Amino acid sequence: MKQQFAVIGLGRFGSSLALTLTESGYEVLGIDKDEEIVADMATKLTHCVVADSTEEDVFRSLGIRNFDCAVVAIGDDIQASIMTAILLKDLGVKMIVAKALSTLHGKVLERIGIEKVIFPERDMGAKVAHQLISPNILDYIELSKDYSIAEIGIPARLSGQSLMELNLRAKFGLSVVAVNKKKGIVIAPSADIILEEKDIIVVIGLNEQIEEFENKISKGTPVRA
Amino acid sequence: MKQQFAVIGLGRFGSSLALTLTESGYEVLGIDKDEEIVADMATKLTHCVVADSTEEDVFRSLGIRNFDCAVVAIGDDIQASIMTAILLKDLGVKMIVAKALSTLHGKVLERIGIEKVIFPERDMGAKVAHQLISPNILDYIELSKDYSIAEIGIPARLSGQSLMELNLRAKFGLSVVAVNKKKGIVIAPSADIILEEKDIIVVIGLNEQIEEFENKISKGTPVRA
Amino acid sequence: MKQQFAVIGLGRFGSSLALTLTESGYEVLGIDKDEEIVADMATKLTHCVVADSTEEDVFRSLGIRNFDCAVVAIGDDIQASIMTAILLKDLGVKMIVAKALSTLHGKVLERIGIEKVIFPERDMGAKVAHQLISPNILDYIELSKDYSIAEIGIPARLSGQSLMELNLRAKFGLSVVAVNKKKGIVIAPSADIILEEKDIIVVIGLNEQIEEFENKISKGTPVRA
Amino acid sequence: MKQQFAVIGLGRFGSSLALTLTESGYEVLGIDKDEEIVADMATKLTHCVVADSTEEDVFRSLGIRNFDCAVVAIGDDIQASIMTAILLKDLGVKMIVAKALSTLHGKVLERIGIEKVIFPERDMGAKVAHQLISPNILDYIELSKDYSIAEIGIPARLSGQSLMELNLRAKFGLSVVAVNKKKGIVIAPSADIILEEKDIIVVIGLNEQIEEFENKISKGTPVRA
Amino acid sequence: MKQQFAVIGLGRFGSSLALTLTESGYEVLGIDKDEEIVADMATKLTHCVVADSTEEDVFRSLGIRNFDCAVVAIGDDIQASIMTAILLKDLGVKMIVAKALSTLHGKVLERIGIEKVIFPERDMGAKVAHQLISPNILDYIELSKDYSIAEIGIPARLSGQSLMELNLRAKFGLSVVAVNKKKGIVIAPSADIILEEKDIIVVIGLNEQIEEFENKISKGTPVRA
Amino acid sequence: MKQQFAVIGLGRFGSSLALTLTESGYEVLGIDKDEEIVADMATKLTHCVVADSTEEDVFRSLGIRNFDCAVVAIGDDIQASIMTAILLKDLGVKMIVAKALSTLHGKVLERIGIEKVIFPERDMGAKVAHQLISPNILDYIELSKDYSIAEIGIPARLSGQSLMELNLRAKFGLSVVAVNKKKGIVIAPSADIILEEKDIIVVIGLNEQIEEFENKISKGTPVRA
Amino acid sequence: MKQQFAVIGLGRFGSSLALTLTESGYEVLGIDKDEEIVADMATKLTHCVVADSTEEDVFRSLGIRNFDCAVVAIGDDIQASIMTAILLKDLGVKMIVAKALSTLHGKVLERIGIEKVIFPERDMGAKVAHQLISPNILDYIELSKDYSIAEIGIPARLSGQSLMELNLRAKFGLSVVAVNKKKGIVIAPSADIILEEKDIIVVIGLNEQIEEFENKISKGTPVRA
Amino acid sequence: MKQQFAVIGLGRFGSSLALTLTESGYEVLGIDKDEEIVADMATKLTHCVVADSTEEDVFRSLGIRNFDCAVVAIGDDIQASIMTAILLKDLGVKMIVAKALSTLHGKVLERIGIEKVIFPERDMGAKVAHQLISPNILDYIELSKDYSIAEIGIPARLSGQSLMELNLRAKFGLSVVAVNKKKGIVIAPSADIILEEKDIIVVIGLNEQIEEFENKISKGTPVRA
Repeated sequence: MKQQFAVIGLGRFGSSLALTLTESGYEVLGIDKDEEIVADMATKLTHCVVADSTEEDVFRSLGIRNFDCAVVAIGDDIQASIMTAILLKDLGVKMIVAKALSTLHGKVLERIGIEKVIFPERDMGAKVAHQLISPNILDYIELSKDYSIAEIGIPARLSGQSLMELNLRAKFGLSVVAVNKKKGIVIAPSADIILEEKDIIVVIGLNEQIEEFENKISKGTPVRA
Repeated sequence: MKQQFAVIGLGRFGSSLALTLTESGYEVLGIDKDEEIVADMATKLTHCVVADSTEEDVFRSLGIRNFDCAVVAIGDDIQASIMTAILLKDLGVKMIVAKALSTLHGKVLERIGIEKVIFPERDMGAKVAHQLISPNILDYIELSKDYSIAEIGIPARLSGQSLMELNLRAKFGLSVVAVNKKKGIVIAPSADIILEEKDIIVVIGLNEQIEEFENKISKGTPVRA
Repeated sequence: MKQQFAVIGLGRFGSSLALTLTESGYEVLGIDKDEEIVADMATKLTHCVVADSTEEDVFRSLGIRNFDCAVVAIGDDIQASIMTAILLKDLGVKMIVAKALSTLHGKVLERIGIEKVIFPERDMGAKVAHQLISPNILDYIELSKDYSIAEIGIPARLSGQSLMELNLRAKFGLSVVAVNKKKGIVIAPSADIILEEKDIIVVIGLNEQIEEFENKISKGTPVRA
Repeated sequence: MKQQFAVIGLGRFGSSLALTLTESGYEVLGIDKDEEIVADMATKLTHCVVADSTEEDVFRSLGIRNFDCAVVAIGDDIQASIMTAILLKDLGVKMIVAKALSTLHGKVLERIGIEKVIFPERDMGAKVAHQLISPNILDYIELSKDYSIAEIGIPARLSGQSLMELNLRAKFGLSVVAVNKKKGIVIAPSADIILEEKDIIVVIGLNEQIEEFENKISKGTPVRA
Repeated sequence: MKQQFAVIGLGRFGSSLALTLTESGYEVLGIDKDEEIVADMATKLTHCVVADSTEEDVFRSLGIRNFDCAVVAIGDDIQASIMTAILLKDLGVKMIVAKALSTLHGKVLERIGIEKVIFPERDMGAKVAHQLISPNILDYIELSKDYSIAEIGIPARLSGQSLMELNLRAKFGLSVVAVNKKKGIVIAPSADIILEEKDIIVVIGLNEQIEEFENKISKGTPVRA
Repeated sequence: MKQQFAVIGLGRFGSSLALTLTESGYEVLGIDKDEEIVADMATKLTHCVVADSTEEDVFRSLGIRNFDCAVVAIGDDIQASIMTAILLKDLGVKMIVAKALSTLHGKVLERIGIEKVIFPERDMGAKVAHQLISPNILDYIELSKDYSIAEIGIPARLSGQSLMELNLRAKFGLSVVAVNKKKGIVIAPSADIILEEKDIIVVIGLNEQIEEFENKISKGTPVRA
Repeated sequence: MKQQFAVIGLGRFGSSLALTLTESGYEVLGIDKDEEIVADMATKLTHCVVADSTEEDVFRSLGIRNFDCAVVAIGDDIQASIMTAILLKDLGVKMIVAKALSTLHGKVLERIGIEKVIFPERDMGAKVAHQLISPNILDYIELSKDYSIAEIGIPARLSGQSLMELNLRAKFGLSVVAVNKKKGIVIAPSADIILEEKDIIVVIGLNEQIEEFENKISKGTPVRA
Repeated sequence: MKQQFAVIGLGRFGSSLALTLTESGYEVLGIDKDEEIVADMATKLTHCVVADSTEEDVFRSLGIRNFDCAVVAIGDDIQASIMTAILLKDLGVKMIVAKALSTLHGKVLERIGIEKVIFPERDMGAKVAHQLISPNILDYIELSKDYSIAEIGIPARLSGQSLMELNLRAKFGLSVVAVNKKKGIVIAPSADIILEEKDIIVVIGLNEQIEEFENKISKGTPVRA
């Protein structure tokens, strides 16, 4: 049987989450107290109901305890978020995820036993900041405090150079894991592969060296010499 | 000289973005119309002013045109967001990034020439959905429509196996780029490295095969046999 | 087939516009989110619906793309005005006219591609100001920066004079295009036509000379001598 | 001495009116109860005060009775508009002009003796409607119920024809009063003047014939044959 | 046929007025925009409707022009009061009475031609003030600026005196018109009538002398000596 | 020493009452919680303070217990009216008068021991109703359930008749107490006095006979025959 | 027949009161103006209606005069509380209990004749304060200004002592009325009963001596020596 | 050194609690966000500040961690109550007491580790209900599920009887612990003490038997026979 998710609060974050789950083939019950929002989502989720999630009866009648996971994605009402979370907890829902609006809110959620507390705006703010600082770093995964994997866009200036010429390992201690070229992904590329503008290389290495490399690219300092 | 950023709107998203930029060593001017918010951020950013960002004089007196980048991070007021964006555009700011609250809002921002339009809640909703679906995939980068790099947590059940035994390439077409062990990152690990619980492996491969592998781990199907 | 107009926003400006179109024999669809206003206009326009013009479905179901022209006459809500305009634009409406509430609002509308942006209150304010300054100039058309055609009322003091006696061409460089007398319009009047109080003459000439003439009339300086 | 105007209510209509008067060299006192609006207009008008125009003392201390004309341009508050008007009337202001928001409001203003009552939105709505119906008629003056003077734009199709060829008098009973060409205005043009695209002709004639001519131009029916 | 009254506004003043008319046998139509108030008065007046009195259609459908008198008793909304009054005037209602909330409001009502403008709170305030000042004067009619008729209560101290002994004409210039005794009214009482405590005498005379007499009674100065 | 009054609540009723007391030479302390109202009355009363009359300290600091009379004239806030009244009662004010907004409110005021409860709007409504019913009765005093004194205006039709001809005593049982003529009041008029239009007669008699007389005058039934 | 109670106002205090009465087997009519609250209580009380308790008709139609007792438990609206109370009083309800929100409110309720006025928050605040001051005093009854009965918890330190050893009468003048032990209550315990931790003794004596004893226990001063 | 208490929220419950602590000689810091409330309490508590208790800095600057006990007595704002509680918890306050507005609220408070959660309105509601049911039981302590100590008022009917005659032990199994007579408390009264009206006896026994006794008293069933 397919996993079942309940998403409480269908604002921008909750609706995006619910839609992604639905598109991935899961059963999703959406709950919001706003009639208009529910009407809008009704055809897009498995079930969608208008309800006040701080009333115990609501959850009982929906059989919430049988869901595999409940996500408290309530937008701006900290009280409703906490009340909903404690109700779900009391009803014995196996896995509860909740969005926190502030550090203090997050602490309360953790203290009442919520399994996973997330801070979407805070995390996204940090992510966008990094993108602004290093525009050629298209995406990245922080492996540890020191190491990352990063996607780096190749600017026009480097077009025509081979990996060997760039010599990333020697100069920056970076390994090239893959090259994403127009015609497809090349995993574990050979040293003589020629880079072209808009190619994307995936490197692994120390954060500071990734940044140093990106920095040189951005500022136009010739990498080769 | 250090790059200068202006962040307009210091809600959860904007303040996180501004703080990350500041912590990375950049000069950041924060603008919000809420006195309390500005008082709270005043000591954390380079400059912080209370101002209505829809009034042209405000930006002129702040010399906004000399900033390298302006981020319109206004929370819930679509009109203020658009008016601020067009003002910045008219003043000739080189790079403008704006947060959109809806698809329609995003379209207007693009049409008036904003360089980068972002949808933090929508994107974060999708990201969290993926984490819920594949809890062992800790983070990922979508390289293309088909390929991704993913961080995968090793469950207790696989503890003690070597990479060779897992035989990911043969069974799932996945290459292991790195292994994140308690004692440090191992890049391009050899086949006889022994995995332990809580180790994280970084793999590259087709999306569906990453998911298939994650799926097997989660559901407890023995990987080896 | 008759041309079809959609008028969105039925306030004082929009309703007057819609009624004038209807009285001229065109098909007019009126849209407003206020039930009372729609109830009041329902019998006066071809169609009249209560709807939120910022929702795409509304326009689709009304077949708005088949209208010849849509007028965004929304009263005081800049956001709704912009959102409505971009929706109409996206749906491919051929001709869109929108009322702007401020210079900045007008800029946004132009930038998103609205064909004609109008500023009714601003324009009407200027027009009334001119009427107050030159009360004998009943109406006028600015032909260029320098030239205008103006309707000028003849005060009691000039009653009984002929056009020849006024000698407008020699004294003020003005041509008299027509005289509007109680009994009818005289186009290209002859020089010996006798003016009476409340006659209206239509003159063409330089703005400053029209004003000089009007000034003399108003202030009672004898024109003849 | 220069004429003095008082403008009460500095919204979009009132401020435009006040600015036009100021630019024409008159002394203008602006009054509004909104501090922000007054602060914005303070440098643009002769005098500008924050005041509640329904209190008699306000007008006394401003010496309003010595002004040549007072304009009640209050935006949306019918009660304030009426109270202001009766106060001005009682104080003996020579000439009072007031903006009416509805027919009923207009009736009250007339009944209490206001010299000139205007309906800017209603009039502008009608004017814009006519422009939409006859897009080639750029502006017009209604001389009487039947006759008008109109500015008509010359479309590409008619480019190269002479006035004689158009033969407007014979076909439509219209006289051409002037031709506005790129290089200047030609008053009382001769019949052999050649029209070019974007020229504007000024005609005088019966309304229905002006519309018939405009109609032919718009619909592409060959005018000549 | 019985006279017909319409009372618009059924607050404390309006409802009292309407009830008094009804109790006196007249037909009364009550109008108020508040449903609850109308529900409460429905059984007490001839007719009672919920309606917005500023809409012309309302009055037409109620046939208001056939009423003998309309009373505008609207409580606190000056605009609604004026709009209602002008509508009734336009519809040709023979007699219109309106309650004014302020002097300025009263002026507008008079200027638009209302037959009778009343100031209930102001008048009642003055009346109660007089009662407080002269507690023995129970009621009075001001005949002219100088003369009044007044009802004066007889205090215990004067009990047992005859009118002759009081000698009001000689001492205060007052004529005693009637004496209201427990057992009935005595009109044009003879001089030997004996007054008792709680008798009420009705006197006519100069205001200041009535007050002087009342004053002596209140302050306990012996009247006789 | 002059009597001292405190008036709490300076709305239309309270301010009129306070002004009348002041004009009659008494000391009046006005109290209202609205700053604007107090500013407006400050120069017109002996003292005027902004205060919340439901706080005991306010009254103590004003020395309210030394006033001869306190009037609770609070406009629309029943709770404030009751709280103020009980406070004044507790402080031992000798005489308290309070305005009631409804019958129930009046009952509470009486039950807590207020000396005099008044219903201005209700009483004024009844008074105006009587004026509408009998327009020639200009004012009246109800002496008892059956008897009144009334001022009656003499219409044109009766002009030139003597009191004897009117024969009011025989026909209606009315005594004429006084005649108010243009040139002055005539007390106890002789029978041959000639009445003129706009004279006012003061009669005493049974209510129903006063009304019968007034009725005949109004309806034009010839009185003489 | 069972006693009947009406509870007006079903907030936290009122609903708790109503439920306790119901659980004790009495008939309870609950009244509140909030639909949601009534819906929630409907199944828990004998009857439950949505009604405005300040309208006389409501109580009549509910036959309130036949109830044995009415409790006015209205939460925050002092005016509604007083109006309801006077209505119940007027209708002749035998016993009326009302909750007061302030001292002044309480005075009004008493003055209009309410049998019992209670101050739940004030009393509960005092009670909790005492519990905080003397945490070992679990509950108490004030018998008079000086004497109380108190439940005192026995701390670990006193465990194993007999009543005789504690010698409360000699040291503190306290009589031990009962000992509440895990296995049951011992009334009039003998002197050799051994106390254990978590036993509770019930003592009677002077307030100050109870406190002194409690104080010694809390502060750890050895009681015995 | 005296114990220090902080009371957050100075509504009816909180202020009563704070005042009782102060009167008992403890140091009390009162905190409320309402200026007026703080102004009113300022002279009555040791310290009193206006502050938002959900901001960490507030508590730090007040040195809250040094207080012996903090009471969260916030009136109606559940979110503020929870946020305040978690902040106090985080700051390491030794003892925290919080008022809960609902069962759910209470659960959250317990889960985040608050030492003592109280429900004043609920408890007081139950207490008053018991008083209504058994009006002669003036106060009581529940010793266990079955046993209580109760104060019972002696009605007129029992006046003159001795304890022996009442024979409470035999008939109801009740022990009389004390008798509160006008002239003082008699502890462990002898059997021949004579009871008078308004005496209060303190009994200990089974709940149901106390109620049975009270019931007999109330209903007038002769106790003796």
